[in-house]
Order: sequence, then structure tokens, then C-alpha cells
Amino acid sequence: MSDPWLPTLTTASPQAGFELAVKLSRIGVKLTQPSDQVRSHLRAAYEQDSSQLISASHVIAVHFQTIAAANNWWR
Amino acid sequence: MSDPWLPTLTTASPQAGFELAVKLSRIGVKLTQPSDQVRSHLRAAYEQDSSQLISASHVIAVHFQTIAAANNWWR
Amino acid sequence: MSDPWLPTLTTASPQAGFELAVKLSRIGVKLTQPSDQVRSHLRAAYEQDSSQLISASHVIAVHFQTIAAANNWWR
Amino acid sequence: MSDPWLPTLTTASPQAGFELAVKLSRIGVKLTQPSDQVRSHLRAAYEQDSSQLISASHVIAVHFQTIAAANNWWR
Amino acid sequence: MSDPWLPTLTTASPQAGFELAVKLSRIGVKLTQPSDQVRSHLRAAYEQDSSQLISASHVIAVHFQTIAAANNWWR
Amino acid sequence: MSDPWLPTLTTASPQAGFELAVKLSRIGVKLTQPSDQVRSHLRAAYEQDSSQLISASHVIAVHFQTIAAANNWWR
Repeated sequence: MSDPWLPTLTTASPQAGFELAVKLSRIGVKLTQPSDQVRSHLRAAYEQDSSQLISASHVIAVHFQTIAAANNWWR
Repeated sequence: MSDPWLPTLTTASPQAGFELAVKLSRIGVKLTQPSDQVRSHLRAAYEQDSSQLISASHVIAVHFQTIAAANNWWR
Repeated sequence: MSDPWLPTLTTASPQAGFELAVKLSRIGVKLTQPSDQVRSHLRAAYEQDSSQLISASHVIAVHFQTIAAANNWWR
Repeated sequence: MSDPWLPTLTTASPQAGFELAVKLSRIGVKLTQPSDQVRSHLRAAYEQDSSQLISASHVIAVHFQTIAAANNWWR
Repeated sequence: MSDPWLPTLTTASPQAGFELAVKLSRIGVKLTQPSDQVRSHLRAAYEQDSSQLISASHVIAVHFQTIAAANNWWR
Repeated sequence: MSDPWLPTLTTASPQAGFELAVKLSRIGVKLTQPSDQVRSHLRAAYEQDSSQLISASHVIAVHFQTIAAANNWWR
């Protein structure tokens, strides 16, 4: 992850902001478990586990709050 | 999900905002597990699990915070 | 749930705001599991489970934050 | 709980605000499980469970955020 | 806990604010389980449990949000 | 941890702010379990556990909210 991956929190639309929130939630995992191989292996399991899918959705929601505020809620 | 699904956070009422929060919590799951078939299968299980229903309600609450702020709390 | 159930976030007092938070946390569950019968069945179990009661209290706390802000903290 | 139990979010000090947060987290449980007898029974168990104690502390933290904001952080 | 333990949320630095957040997360546990003996016993177990350590770190993060806002983010 | 480890919440970019959020989430664990040896041991396990990786990502998200606000969202 040597390239810049978060130059700004500004996005063109709420939808783009939501997609950035998904990205940030994944980067949070990646910075804790950097191995692509291990993450791929784990993904196969948790994608079948509704409890973890809800937890992932929760992290996205927290990041979306931050990004929405950064964009003045796209008003 | 090629059509725009989140053009704005503005809603006509608190209730419409709450329904948007439900939608966003589901999109958070869908972007992590895109297969309609797998999600339908998982839904049958977690809809019978009170712990997961409370977790789902939690994610909705976080999104509702964001949407309520975006709408200046519909004051 | 065809009747309007959330016309406003404004309440007369902090206590009424807290009660609205309880209502919203339950609606979050209801919109995910619409069957009254299933929810009644689940309630019998989770009301005896302290971990789930704490989780329910957590969701109420998040909604209460939103409602308190909407009411300018009833200052 | 027929007496008013939350007339205001204003407290004289941060410490009193924290104690109010503890109260609100318990009321959140009480409104979901109204039986004093069941709650006493559950309390005996979860007071010995560090995971649930941390969860309880989490709910207190969320309410403390709300109360601190209501008191303009006692500045 | 008869001595005042939270006279102010103001701290001299972000680091002191973080340490106060740690203190508040522990007080949240202490007010739920007041026995020093029981807490010491539980601590020996949860300090070896990564899941609970992450949960403890989460509670600290929530309190740190509150304290950072109280200090106008030490700008 | 005798050296200052959090002199400011100000960062040069959102990405640096995210990295600080990762650091704070780890310090939250370290202040609860100070033994480097125990933490290394636990890390080997939880890095293979998707549920805990999502929880770690959640804590990062909460700290990132705080840091983003401290930096006025790098606008």
C-alpha cells in the first residue's frame, strides 16, 4: 500500500461517499492483516456468515458518518 | 447495482429517513456479499436469531444518525 | 405499519425522547423481521439473556443520541 | 416507572453526568425486561462475565457522549 | 469511590485525554461490578482474550471522542 | 510508553489521520494488556479470525471519526 489511497474525504455524491466508506472499512482490516492470501481465505468463510456481514455493514456505517460530515452531507 | 441507489440523503420526513437507513444497512451487506442467492439463504437463518436482529437494528440506528443530521433533524 | 409511525423527532421532555428511542430500536427489528409471531417467540428467549438485553440497551442509546440532538438536548 | 425518571440531561458536574449515563444504560435494560426478579437473576450472572461488563461500559460511554454534549462538556 | 473522580473533561494534551478515556472505560466497569476482588479475577482472564481486548479498546475510543470534543480537539 | 506518543491529533492528510487511528486502536489494547509477549501471542490468533479483524476495523473507524473532526475533515 505504498501508493496514496486516501487523498481526500470529498466525494461527488452520497453514493460515492458510501463506496469510499466500504473501502475504508476494508483498509482497516488490511492494515491489521496485510496478507492478501490470508484475507482471501477468511473472506470465503465470513461471506457466508450473516453475523459477520452485519458487523461489516456496521463498520461501513461508522465510516459513512465521517464521510457524510466531511461532505457537509452533500447538501 | 449499476443504477444510482443513493442520489441524496434528504428525505421528506423522519420516517422516510428511517426507511433510507434500513436500505443503507442492507446495501452495506450487499456490497460485501453480492450474491442474491447467498443473502436469501442467510436471511432465512438470521431472521430467527434475536441477537442478529438487534445487531441489524444497531446498524440502522447508526445510519439514521447520519441521515437525521443530513436533514437537520427535520426541524 | 401503514400508519405514520415517526412524524417528528421532537418530544416534550428527555424522558419522552428516551421512550421514542426505545420505539425506534424496536422498529429497527420489526422492519427486518415483520412477523409478530416470530418476534414474540424470540422475545421470550432474549428477555432472559443479559447479553442481548445489554445489546438492546446499546441500540436505544444510539437512537437517544439522535433524538437528543434533534431536540437541542432539551436545553 | 410511573414517576418521572429523566426530567433533564443537565448535571452539576461531569461525574454526575457519568452517573446519569449509568442510570440511562440500566433504564434501557429495564424497559426491555421490566421484571425486577428476572433482572436480579441475570445480574448475578453477568457481573461475573468480563465480556458483558465491557459491553455495559460501552453503553455507558454512548450515553455519556450524549450527556456531555447536553452540558456543553461542562466547560 | 467517595472521592471525586471526574472533576473535569479538560486535559492538558491529547495523550492525557486518552489516558482519561482509559480511566472512564474502567470506571464504567467498576460501577457495574464494584468488587475489586471479582474484577481482579476477571482481569486475569480477559487480558488473555484478544476479542475482549479489542472490545475494551472500542470503549476507550468512544470515551476519547467525548473527551476530544470537550477539549476542542486540543487545536 | 514513557515517551510522548500523542502530541497532537493534527495530521497532514486523511491517510495520515487513518494511520493515526490504527495506532490509537492499538494503544487502546496496549494500555489494557501491556505485555508485548502476550500481545504478540494473541495477535497470531486473531489475525486469522475474520470476526476480530472486523472488530479491529470498527475501533479504527471510531478513532478516525475523532481525528477527522480534529482536522476539520481536511477540507
